[in-house]
Formats: sequence, C-alpha cells, structure tokens
Amino acid sequence: MPGEQPQDRRYIKLNTNENPYPPSPQVVLAIKNAAEGDLRRYPDPSARELRQKAAEVYGVPPEQIIAGNGSDDLLSILFRVCVEGGAPRQVAYPVPTYSLYDTLAAIQGAPPTTVPFPADFALPIEALVAADARVTIVCNPNSPSGTAVPVSDIAALAERTSGLVVVDEAYVDFARESALSLLGTCSNVLVLRTFSKSFSLAGMRVGLGFARREIIDELNKVKDSYNLNRVSLLAAQAALEDLPWMNVNVARVRAARETLSAELLSLGFLVLPSAANFIFAKCPRLSGKDVYTKLRERGILVRHFAAPLLSEGVRITVGSPEENAALVDALRAILAVPEVAAPAAG
Amino acid sequence: MPGEQPQDRRYIKLNTNENPYPPSPQVVLAIKNAAEGDLRRYPDPSARELRQKAAEVYGVPPEQIIAGNGSDDLLSILFRVCVEGGAPRQVAYPVPTYSLYDTLAAIQGAPPTTVPFPADFALPIEALVAADARVTIVCNPNSPSGTAVPVSDIAALAERTSGLVVVDEAYVDFARESALSLLGTCSNVLVLRTFSKSFSLAGMRVGLGFARREIIDELNKVKDSYNLNRVSLLAAQAALEDLPWMNVNVARVRAARETLSAELLSLGFLVLPSAANFIFAKCPRLSGKDVYTKLRERGILVRHFAAPLLSEGVRITVGSPEENAALVDALRAILAVPEVAAPAAG
Repeated sequence: MPGEQPQDRRYIKLNTNENPYPPSPQVVLAIKNAAEGDLRRYPDPSARELRQKAAEVYGVPPEQIIAGNGSDDLLSILFRVCVEGGAPRQVAYPVPTYSLYDTLAAIQGAPPTTVPFPADFALPIEALVAADARVTIVCNPNSPSGTAVPVSDIAALAERTSGLVVVDEAYVDFARESALSLLGTCSNVLVLRTFSKSFSLAGMRVGLGFARREIIDELNKVKDSYNLNRVSLLAAQAALEDLPWMNVNVARVRAARETLSAELLSLGFLVLPSAANFIFAKCPRLSGKDVYTKLRERGILVRHFAAPLLSEGVRITVGSPEENAALVDALRAILAVPEVAAPAAG
Repeated sequence: MPGEQPQDRRYIKLNTNENPYPPSPQVVLAIKNAAEGDLRRYPDPSARELRQKAAEVYGVPPEQIIAGNGSDDLLSILFRVCVEGGAPRQVAYPVPTYSLYDTLAAIQGAPPTTVPFPADFALPIEALVAADARVTIVCNPNSPSGTAVPVSDIAALAERTSGLVVVDEAYVDFARESALSLLGTCSNVLVLRTFSKSFSLAGMRVGLGFARREIIDELNKVKDSYNLNRVSLLAAQAALEDLPWMNVNVARVRAARETLSAELLSLGFLVLPSAANFIFAKCPRLSGKDVYTKLRERGILVRHFAAPLLSEGVRITVGSPEENAALVDALRAILAVPEVAAPAAG
C-alpha cells in the first residue's frame, strides 16, 4: 500500500519522501534526447552503460551491479531468488521498517522473523543472528523511523550470520556512511540504492544493487530481461553524471531537516534523530492519527502508520523551506501554540 | 534469453520483432513534455489515466484492466499469483511458443505441461483440456511460428477448462481477430497486450492485461506499486490517442509480410502462414543454424532457436521494404540463386 496520492485538491505533499527539488537539467535533457531515440527498439537488457557509469561513481566493478525498475523491483527479485515458501528461517528484519518486506514475504509464502528495534533504534544484532535467516534485511537509514545504525554494526551482523545481509540504502545519501564499503570484506552483503530520493527521480523507477558477482548473477536469472526502459536508463545515467546537483539538493534537505527538527521540538514534539529526508515525530498531546487528520484538513499530507510502535506519531517528509514553514504554522495552529521568537535552531 | 543485441557492427536487425517504423510523433511529444513534468514525484500506482484511455479504445471497463512494465511484467505477476511451486497441473501451453513461459515456470518451481502443436499449428484443444491446468497459455498469434488459431477455438478451450486461459496477444494487431471479444462471455480468460510491436514502443516497456475484475484484483495484489514510470505511462497513453499512426504502420508491415513470404517461397523456402510481424521459414537446402550464420556474416540478424521443432528454420522479423530487400538479396547470394524477373507477389 503506497502513500496516498489524492486528486481532490492540491496538497503540500510531505507523505512519500519525495525530493522537494527537481532532478538535474542534464536528466531532463537526456529524456528529451531519448524521446528522439530508437524507442521502437528494445532497451539494453544488461543496462551496460548505466552499470558502467555506476561502477565509476561507486567504485564497484560493473559485473557486481544490477539495475532494477526501482529498488522495489530488486527486492522483489531478491525474494523470488532467495526466499522459499513454506520453509522456516527464510527472512528476518528489525521492525518497524519498510512495509514492502512484509508484503513480499507474504507473497512468497514465507512468514518473516521480525525483531523489534529497541527504543533507541540500535541494530538488534544478537536477535538477528539468532534468527539465522537465509536473508536478513536492514533498512539503513530506516523508514519510517529515519534512524541510522553504524555500518560497523552491519559488518558485525554480516560476519556472524551465514545468510545474505541486504542493506536497503534508499535514504543513504542523506546519512553519513554507506555499507558499500563492506563489499570488499563481507561476501554476504547486498546493498540496494534508488534514484527516487536523493536524485529526485521517483517518477522514473530506477534502483541499483551491489554485491559480489555470484549473487548478482543469481538475481539476473530472475530479472525480467527488459526490466528497464530506454528513457529511465538514460535518465539515471545522466543523474550520475551530475552528482553536484544531487549533492547540493541533499545538503539543502539536510539543513532543512535540522531546522524542522528543532521547530518540532520547540512545539513539544518528540523527534527521533533522522539520517534521512524525513522525520518521525510524536506529539505528546495528540495521537498520530489526529495529527495526520488535522494536517490533512489544512491541506498538508504526512504519513500515519497504524502499526503498534508507529501509530502514536507521524512521518514527515522534509520539504522545501516554504513547505516546512507551512507545516510548522499548521501544527502551531492545531496545537494553539502562540508564535514566539524562533528558538536558535540547529 | 532475449534476442542478441550485438554492439560490434551495424546490423539489419530482423531478430527481435521490433517495428520498422517509429512511434507516433504524439508519443515523442508526450515524452518531451513528461521530461518537464514532476519527475521527482512517484507515478500513479494505478495507471488510472492510461487504463481509462485503454478502456475507451478497447471497450473494456478500466477496473478490468491492469498495466504492466511490458507484458513480460504481467506474465511474471501471473505466474507468481497463479502458479504454485511443487504442485501438479499448474501451467500448460502448446509448444513451440514464447520461451519466457518455460523460464517463469522454472522460477516458480512448477514443471509445465507442454503440448506439441500439430504440423498445421492448430490449437490442440483436447490435449490442453486433458492437461487440466490452473493456467493454460495460448500465444496468439504464436511466436516463433507466426501462426494464429481462430478465437472460436480459444473460446472452446476456455469453456472446457476450469482454469484460467491466458491469451498472449503481443502480435494481435497484425492478425485478424482478438480474444478481447471473449471477455463478456468467458469469465476465465485473461488477455495480454503490449505496446512493443504494433505501437513501436519496445523501448518503453508497457503492456496491458484484460480480464474480469476479480482476476485483475488478484494480479494487482502482487504488482509492484510503482511498476510503471511517469514517462512510459504518458507515452503509452499518447500512443492510444493516435491509433491511425499505428494502423498505417501495421498495414505497411502486413503488406511487406505478404511480399516477403512470396519472395521466400520463390527462393524455395517453406513458409508458415503468418498473422504476426515475422515469418518462420525453413530452407530445404540449409539448416536454420546455417541460414542464421550466413546471414549474420552478411550483416543481417535473424533469430535461430535450438529447440527440436524450430532448429530447422529461422524466424525473420518483417522489416522495412529496404531491409526486406536486403534480406532477400543476401539469401539469393547465399543460395546462389540467380536473380530473375520477380514473381507476381502477394
């Protein structure tokens, strides 16, 4: 179940972790050029040029990279390759996390072992090692908490489990460190990336997977031959050719995240420390559902999750400064907090 | 294993059934407009506008339509929903046919029941009914034979089997009749279409599925939320808004198909009657492999299949008149047939 995309009125959309800034003009140009290209021809099934460019950017050989129709496609491939229906100890992950893992486990007929995160959202290494699953997934930074665990903890987990450790790094460009650094030493690590967040390309559906060659080869056996269309391939390649554009936008979102966190704190919210482009926040005076509903009435969409640990709060995507200011104004009105001199914000 | 896409030199590509003509200028324009659109936003997970347009064109309600990342995506979803690994009588189809069915059955761990087509490629109804599978697939027109069976035969099959009958109509715009007409009367029919062939959009990856609502609802449960990107959605919609463009190209390909068939016959080939945009042809003097290899040496790619019934011949995509003429010239040279006054063709 994806975040709502209502058509009834114009909302400030802070509910699906999209980037408030557009993609690089080079991406726009690449798409226009692709429109004049050989659309009647099948795309390159191996995404060779995109993988070559990704190899340069990330310092991983192209044969250790797979391209997906979004990282959701790669997760779906992963489950089909590695998760056997009806068998025990197939897949484990700390929760709450990205709900697609539950969906894919259910489709595959393999009940997952879910390990609760502790209150500080540290990685529950012992419990995950004890789960002894064929596939252990760590979303890092995690959604919807926004928290990140140290890559050294993921390394410790990978060393102590015989199964595959999948690090879903959809939000990693907004964080401090990446598990890509583990590929050289941990043979059982698969890292997933997406162009949807930091590269502002949610609309194009491109993701990448990185692992040792044998793992990538297995995933390729299940991948649809032509899973990526010509335009998305060229758009993603162009995005990788303009990293400064992405980096500037990421820096702006990070700065806005710190400002917004401070403002939410000043309104009395409890805010989890975020390493992503969104903030999970709880209001001591209102339920998460109430915050969601009252913001929606004011034309602002945030995400509310009905799950036990999450229902008290809301997940708020960091928007543009104007969108964030509108959010804070709306919350102030909802909570009837008088406007005061702004606190010294992070 | 998709058709080869060699990079070493420029070939006349008659091996992957691509359309020799480009897509509608309206499609090109739609892609350029999409480049200026909200690429940072997720696409509509329900493909509402595309399905609405398809509903108008095909006379099927939008809730009975699902959009896929190519019809390969829809086939993959179908197998995940309907085909249970390890269980008997899961999937059946007449062979030789599209090799992806074998691949998907193998991924799902369900050995398919394959029923040989008779020499005239009529639908083996009795044997398919006897197979009593949860899913019976009929590729119509069939690849790589190019032959088509009457829709009335598919109706007879659907009436006599309790399982789902999937009609893969990738090539149907080049044929005479469609199984879409069965949707009102046969509750167990799923029809698959693609934009890759008649609409000249192999590079964009869009397919459609049509069935009664309960079937579509089940497929949607397994579909990736965002399986189609913003650009492909708009490209496909624009293609449906310019049916005359597609129809003109289809008419040209059909005419060229008749001409090419006659020329191949005059060179001594045995040619199956084609209702598609390709021709399966056997040379009495050379193996299929030899024809393929000698054409490749002359810069022309056709498709050779190693499977028993197919290895004697080659599958030749109908290209532009110039490409087809180059093919005939090359075959004439290979077979050392002197050029004579052209026979009265088609």
